[in-house]
Amino acid sequence: MKGSIFIVSAPSGAGKTTLCRRLTDIVPRLVHSVSYTTRKPREGEVDGKDYFFVDEDAFMRMVGSGEFLEWAEVHGNLYGTSRTKLFEIIQEGVDVILDIDTQGAAQIRQRGVDATFVFVLPPSLEALSERLRSRKTDSEQVIARRLDRAREEISDYRLYDYVIVNDRLDVALNELGSVVQAKRLHISRIDHGWVKQTFGLKGDVS
Amino acid sequence: MKGSIFIVSAPSGAGKTTLCRRLTDIVPRLVHSVSYTTRKPREGEVDGKDYFFVDEDAFMRMVGSGEFLEWAEVHGNLYGTSRTKLFEIIQEGVDVILDIDTQGAAQIRQRGVDATFVFVLPPSLEALSERLRSRKTDSEQVIARRLDRAREEISDYRLYDYVIVNDRLDVALNELGSVVQAKRLHISRIDHGWVKQTFGLKGDVS
Repeated sequence: MKGSIFIVSAPSGAGKTTLCRRLTDIVPRLVHSVSYTTRKPREGEVDGKDYFFVDEDAFMRMVGSGEFLEWAEVHGNLYGTSRTKLFEIIQEGVDVILDIDTQGAAQIRQRGVDATFVFVLPPSLEALSERLRSRKTDSEQVIARRLDRAREEISDYRLYDYVIVNDRLDVALNELGSVVQAKRLHISRIDHGWVKQTFGLKGDVS
Repeated sequence: MKGSIFIVSAPSGAGKTTLCRRLTDIVPRLVHSVSYTTRKPREGEVDGKDYFFVDEDAFMRMVGSGEFLEWAEVHGNLYGTSRTKLFEIIQEGVDVILDIDTQGAAQIRQRGVDATFVFVLPPSLEALSERLRSRKTDSEQVIARRLDRAREEISDYRLYDYVIVNDRLDVALNELGSVVQAKRLHISRIDHGWVKQTFGLKGDVS
């Protein structure tokens, strides 16, 4: 049985990355997709684990060869998801979370990729602004730009299948976990061969 | 926001009723639909709580007036779901579980009622047979008939949206809870007015 793809988008500062990484830590057979990026590594980020860090030339060659299922420019940096790596994961029956922005999600949707789309909202714009400030890595000007962009991104939330409000991390984590677990119980994920054999059912099994 | 309807079917002995009642005990704003039946009350069953116990004449008058959203004969007894009572519950924003057999579920599906369909499987036919025997309320002949009917019912599982294998009650309970929680997070259940107001979005809200 093939794994499922979960697309998780949120304005920056909504806590999306923490949420996704905590979930992959506790849920078996669920992994976090590693994106390619031209962004410089932040302190503590590891190449091949947090991102594959590449320069712009290398990135654009991959774009040219159609290697990216989606790619986008965010705050002046390029981000992309490798098609080959993603399909290798789900072929093994493992589920994968793509932590990507609304532009990237739109490309995946337009390509008709079978995926579950989840939007993470902050509890309020004030909470978002506080979180961006507490990060202490960005200047006030960068924060103001991010807040503008956040409202733009939020306006796309209706294109998603599920919406989670990240007020308390433990609650949001449980909710995102429910979306993943429900997908695993969906009829499209059931091993029909097992049911047929276990209960001696007749008829085709596909 | 209107509540959702969850249809849960299973062969008798799969533990469906226990599962549904435990879930409504622990999940807020989720109730168990009370069916009408012509079956005689078992020891400890309370009229109006477990079922509305009615005689066959009263039941058939309700059928005639179109009061039942679904009704079926199971093991010689009639069971039905009141349309009025069900829609009163979801109008209040409360979710409701209908613990009904595959015939009843098929009627709900055919009427195009917006509902989430969940099938509960036993881990094996042997486990089912043991559970029916441990109940000690039925004769061997009744058990044999129930097992025959169980295989018939199981053959309908593909018409359902979700499948849960009830091997360990706590695991199955958590899984059924995930299906309910995921539905609550679905975009069709989101309060768009709240999102618009909280983030100052423009455009229509419906």
